[in-house]
Amino acid sequence: MKQYLEHAISLAKMVEGQTGINPPVGAVVVKDGRIIGLGAHLKKGDKHAEIQAIDMAGNDNVKGATLYVSLEPCSHDGATPPCAQRIIDTGIQKVVYAARDITLAATGHEMMVNAGIDVHYEPHLFAEKLYAPFFTSKTQTMPIVTVKVSASIDGKQATDYHESQWITSKAVKADVFKLRHMNDAIITGNGTLTVDNPSLTVRTEDGRHPARVILSHSGNINWDATLFHDKVAPVYVYTDNSAVVSPLEHVQVVQLPDTDIDTILHDLYTKGFGRVLVEAGPKLTSQFLASHYISTFILYLAPKIIGGQGKHQFFQTDWVAPLDQLNTFEIVHSEMIDTDMKLHMKRK
Amino acid sequence: MKQYLEHAISLAKMVEGQTGINPPVGAVVVKDGRIIGLGAHLKKGDKHAEIQAIDMAGNDNVKGATLYVSLEPCSHDGATPPCAQRIIDTGIQKVVYAARDITLAATGHEMMVNAGIDVHYEPHLFAEKLYAPFFTSKTQTMPIVTVKVSASIDGKQATDYHESQWITSKAVKADVFKLRHMNDAIITGNGTLTVDNPSLTVRTEDGRHPARVILSHSGNINWDATLFHDKVAPVYVYTDNSAVVSPLEHVQVVQLPDTDIDTILHDLYTKGFGRVLVEAGPKLTSQFLASHYISTFILYLAPKIIGGQGKHQFFQTDWVAPLDQLNTFEIVHSEMIDTDMKLHMKRK
Repeated sequence: MKQYLEHAISLAKMVEGQTGINPPVGAVVVKDGRIIGLGAHLKKGDKHAEIQAIDMAGNDNVKGATLYVSLEPCSHDGATPPCAQRIIDTGIQKVVYAARDITLAATGHEMMVNAGIDVHYEPHLFAEKLYAPFFTSKTQTMPIVTVKVSASIDGKQATDYHESQWITSKAVKADVFKLRHMNDAIITGNGTLTVDNPSLTVRTEDGRHPARVILSHSGNINWDATLFHDKVAPVYVYTDNSAVVSPLEHVQVVQLPDTDIDTILHDLYTKGFGRVLVEAGPKLTSQFLASHYISTFILYLAPKIIGGQGKHQFFQTDWVAPLDQLNTFEIVHSEMIDTDMKLHMKRK
Repeated sequence: MKQYLEHAISLAKMVEGQTGINPPVGAVVVKDGRIIGLGAHLKKGDKHAEIQAIDMAGNDNVKGATLYVSLEPCSHDGATPPCAQRIIDTGIQKVVYAARDITLAATGHEMMVNAGIDVHYEPHLFAEKLYAPFFTSKTQTMPIVTVKVSASIDGKQATDYHESQWITSKAVKADVFKLRHMNDAIITGNGTLTVDNPSLTVRTEDGRHPARVILSHSGNINWDATLFHDKVAPVYVYTDNSAVVSPLEHVQVVQLPDTDIDTILHDLYTKGFGRVLVEAGPKLTSQFLASHYISTFILYLAPKIIGGQGKHQFFQTDWVAPLDQLNTFEIVHSEMIDTDMKLHMKRK
């Protein structure tokens, strides 16, 4: 039944953001009209969702059951043994999955069919949306990038005198904690450390603190900033100044020959950061918004007008793009957060 | 029953925008559990809603009936005789209304009570919202001002090279026609005539063309602009250049000693323009957004980022306001118009 497949997708969504560079996957084992096992891939290196669900049901009970899984079971030895083999071994009769893993040369479908299992690929829009950014990320070996901006309705992050705390409401702050919680690392600029001195942590119950990544071409780092000293989550400094040495044991300085956005993002991916959130000033924000490597753009708009000359417009460029060649987004969701509007956009 | 009062308010809303400087009012006459008369004030000078509803029911049938009306019936001789007297004369037994007319010294409530009618004031949020701008407008003798802006998500009306057609989708254009239809006049600047050459008409079935009002301090008018020649609706030119003479019979030039926004709006009100819509370039738009005389701000946001230096940010000022003293709005409604976001905001 379709509802079980949707339960599997729901399970996957519950763990979205905590699986690093691995896809979030959910699985449900159903027998005689009852759910007998539920599973989700909880973090990279942990059991896959199918195995969790089979384990919950118990090997002996799984024979003849149907497995619903959000993503096609794997057939390769990776961090864990292949799921398809385990499914075959336990005598599962039918497998229904909602998305094909296009990043793998060979997957479990054929392997399971050859073993006599009734395998159904039932594409589901929710699963497609869930995995599209993951597939892109894996293919490009780049993290899934979300850019978050809080601005006035006339597109400014601060007044010309750099006053910015707080444009949006307290409720937005709580929503940003949820957003941070969904990401492995937060990227910001050294300028923001000096102006706002943010912690970039998740100050909410059961929140997960992301790593903090500071970008600074010059390497003229403000080592007094709070986040260098709170020790709640790792801190990385990316710079192309080879003279920079971290004065703090727990802060890692990464010197790359060319610290452009592409290079930094790829390096973060290889370090296991599957999802990164950009929370920065107009300069860095504009660079990311203009880049190809942005998947989601979260814009909190306070219904206030700042005016002035717009020194801190959140998107400002040195070039003028023709109107038919602008970077365009799709507004996939909008909601009021207290008095402010939250727009959830995808790059088109 | 509350539903009848809401029907009355719904009738009022149906005629919102077509009653000039008069309030939109709806009325329902109910007897023996059935609606026997419906009415709305259709335009200034026409019968009031109560009278329309009583007339539909027929004088002879109204005795003993209940009248539901969105606004307290009047007790004064204005363009029409007092409604309260007619209600008394026809033998209506009970009157329920949803909003008090705070702009009148004496209203019909007491007059009807004294005549033995059972009168109930039942405040209703919908009516309150409907009349608040009208009351303000009447008290200030200023039209209800709506500012409409179509912009990119980073707050720009055009690229630095002044490319602006079209940032938002075709569906937005159709929505703007509805917006124009709801207003008595459109205000724009002479600059917009030259850059965009808009008609500012309502090109939709059963649409009502608003008057066009062109503001130009210099009086250096672009008389070739389309709207001076289409003759579908009146055109007014406001200027403080006393040398300007209209070369076109149907275009009225208004010279005022001081053509600031306040003076122009008041003059439009005295001419019977109860609702005006501002559709202008950044300069005029910013002036209106910063003024006290804006009731509604309609912002269409295309999910595109224009960047550049922001020469045409829709809100730009010569001053920098402290963050706690910004002009602030309340987002009362938001909706997707095709790919774009429409925000309906009220001045706070």
